[in-house]
Amino acid sequence: MTLAILFGGSSYEHEISIVSAITLKKVLKRSSLLFIFVDSEREFYLIDGEKMTSKTFSSGDYKKGKKLTLEHGGFFAAGGLLGGRKPVAFDVLLNLIHGRDGEDGKIAGMMEFFGVPFIGPRIEASVLSYSKLNTKLLAHALGIKTLEYRLLQKGEERRVDLDFPLIVKPVHLGSSIGVSVVREASELDYALDVAFEFDEQVIVEPFVEGIVEYNLAGCKTSAWELSLVEEPQKEEFLDFDKKYRDFSRDSRVREAVIDAPLKEKLETAFKAIYDPLFLGSLIRCDFFVVESEVYLNEINPIPGSMANYLFEDFEGMLERLARALPKEKKIAIDYRYIHSIQSAKGKA
Amino acid sequence: MTLAILFGGSSYEHEISIVSAITLKKVLKRSSLLFIFVDSEREFYLIDGEKMTSKTFSSGDYKKGKKLTLEHGGFFAAGGLLGGRKPVAFDVLLNLIHGRDGEDGKIAGMMEFFGVPFIGPRIEASVLSYSKLNTKLLAHALGIKTLEYRLLQKGEERRVDLDFPLIVKPVHLGSSIGVSVVREASELDYALDVAFEFDEQVIVEPFVEGIVEYNLAGCKTSAWELSLVEEPQKEEFLDFDKKYRDFSRDSRVREAVIDAPLKEKLETAFKAIYDPLFLGSLIRCDFFVVESEVYLNEINPIPGSMANYLFEDFEGMLERLARALPKEKKIAIDYRYIHSIQSAKGKA
Repeated sequence: MTLAILFGGSSYEHEISIVSAITLKKVLKRSSLLFIFVDSEREFYLIDGEKMTSKTFSSGDYKKGKKLTLEHGGFFAAGGLLGGRKPVAFDVLLNLIHGRDGEDGKIAGMMEFFGVPFIGPRIEASVLSYSKLNTKLLAHALGIKTLEYRLLQKGEERRVDLDFPLIVKPVHLGSSIGVSVVREASELDYALDVAFEFDEQVIVEPFVEGIVEYNLAGCKTSAWELSLVEEPQKEEFLDFDKKYRDFSRDSRVREAVIDAPLKEKLETAFKAIYDPLFLGSLIRCDFFVVESEVYLNEINPIPGSMANYLFEDFEGMLERLARALPKEKKIAIDYRYIHSIQSAKGKA
Repeated sequence: MTLAILFGGSSYEHEISIVSAITLKKVLKRSSLLFIFVDSEREFYLIDGEKMTSKTFSSGDYKKGKKLTLEHGGFFAAGGLLGGRKPVAFDVLLNLIHGRDGEDGKIAGMMEFFGVPFIGPRIEASVLSYSKLNTKLLAHALGIKTLEYRLLQKGEERRVDLDFPLIVKPVHLGSSIGVSVVREASELDYALDVAFEFDEQVIVEPFVEGIVEYNLAGCKTSAWELSLVEEPQKEEFLDFDKKYRDFSRDSRVREAVIDAPLKEKLETAFKAIYDPLFLGSLIRCDFFVVESEVYLNEINPIPGSMANYLFEDFEGMLERLARALPKEKKIAIDYRYIHSIQSAKGKA
C-alpha cells in the first residue's frame, strides 16, 4: 500500500503535526510512504522521505519540494509539456493535520469533493468532535455522561455559577492550548482572557482533583479493532510542551489495571461514539471515571502520532482500515425536472 | 460589487440550484455577477451571464465554458503562456449550492482553506443544520423546542413507539426528498425503505395535522436584518415538484397575520440560532407553532433563491452582508517548539 501522509496545516498544532508525521515514518515500516506538507500559507508541497526532519520545515527548506495542486482525482505536480500536470500516485491519504484544517472538517470536505480516498474523520464527525460543546451534545444524544459545564461567549457577561477549582478551555482547540486550571475567583478573569485569545467561545467545567482518566483508541475495519486502555500520566493536565513530546511517542505503553466491567463500559461507550459517525477514521476517546461511572472528556479524531503506541499491530490495522473506508453515495443527475419544465413550456 | 454565484454541485438538489441561480440573475439588478457552475463530476466551469438558461446545463453546453481550478486565493482559468493561469476576479462568492456539497460543509471548508471570501454557512453551521438530528441537538442546547422524534439506522430494528400519523425523513437531505407521511402501521415499512434509499439515518416524527408553519429569514450585518414572517402555502407538505417551482420565486409574498408577542418569539428564536454560528450567511428558519409555543422545524442555511421574496431590500442586504463576513483568525507559525527542541539537542 502506498500511503500519502498529509501534515502541517494552518493550525496551532502545525508543529506537532510535523512531529507526528516524523514519528509515523519511524513506525510504518513496510508501507510505501509519501509526505504532503501543508505550509502556513496552505500551499501543498511533496516532501522527500529523506527530508522528513523537523529542520526541513523550521528552515523553510520544504519549499524546495514540488508544489502541488488539488484537483479532481487528487494531487498534481507541475511537469510535462505546456504546463501539463502529473498526478501524484498513492492508494490512500492519511489526514494527520491536528487542530484547524485537519480536525475542523476542511481537509475531509476537500478530499471528499475531489474524490481522494482518505483515513480520517468525515466532515460531520470532525465538527462534532472539534468543538467541546458539540462533543457534549453528541454524548448527551448517545446517553453518555459528560462533566457539567458553562458556555461563555466573547464579549458577554462572565457569569460562572460553579464551585472552584474550575478548568477553562477554548471550545475549538486541542492540545491544551489556552487551557487553565482556576483555583479561586481572583484568577478567573485572567484565565478567561487567555482562552478568549484563541476562541470566541469558552467552556468552563469543574476541575476534579485526582480524577481518573483512561484513554481508548480504535477503529472499525471488517471488525472492531480497539487498543489497550491507557491511564495517562497523572500531571495536573498536559501542557503544550509535554503534549508536544507526547506526539513523538513510538513505543507501546503499559495497560491500565482495571476490572473487566469497567473495561466493558469504556469499550461500549467508545463503540457508541464511533459507529457510524467516525467510520473511516482512527480515533482516541479520553474518558473520566467517577464512582465507576464513565464520562466522556474528549474525542481526538486525529490523535498524536495516531496513538500508534496503544496498538499491538498498528501498521496492519491501518492497512485494514484503508480497505474499509466509507464510500460516498453516487448521485445521478439526469436533468429530469428541467426537461419536464422545458417540455411544459414547449421548448424541448 | 462583483459577486460570483457558485451553483450546481453533486447533490439531489443540483437542478434546483440551477433554478435558484437563474432567479438570482433576475433579482440582482445592480450587482456585477459571475457564474461558477459545479457539474455532477465536481468540475468548475465559468458560465457567461447570457448562457444562464436551464438548457445550457441540461444539454451539456456548459462544457463550452472555461474550466476553472481552485487554488490559493481563488479560482483560476487556463490561459497565458506555458500553461499559465489567470485568476477569476470577484469581491465575494455566494454559495448557492443546495444540499450536498453546498450545505454539508464542503464548499465552506474549501473557501476557507483557499482564502475565498464567501456568503454562506461556515463548516460548523453547515453540519449542525444539514442534519435534522444535529439541528435538534442544537435547538436543545439553545432551549428551543423541537418535535419529539425517533432515530433509525439503516439495517437496524425498525421500532417506532410514536402514534400515527408520522412523518419519515432522511436525516441529511433537504427539499422533501425521500420524505413520506405515514397514516398507519402498514405503510411504515415502505416509507422507511424510500427514506433509506437516500440516507443511512432516518428520523421519524409525529405528523401534526394542520400544524401552523411560519418561515423567517435573515442575517446579521452591522445590525439585524430580518425578513417578514411568511405562512407558507398549506399543502400536506411540499413535494419535490412544488419545491422546485418554489425555488424560482422572485416576487414578494404577503406577510403572515400574527400578533406582536408571537412575532417576537419567532425573532428571538431566530437570533439565538443565528448568532454566532451562522454569521456570514443568510438563512431561513422554518418554525411550527403549537398552542403559542414556537418549535424549530428546520434551518435552511442556503434557502431556495436565497428567500429573496421575503425581503424589502434584498440586493442591499446582500451587499451589506458581503461587507460583514467573519474573518478567519490568522495563526502565526514560528517553529518555536521545534527550534527549542533543536537547541536542547545541540542542533541549532
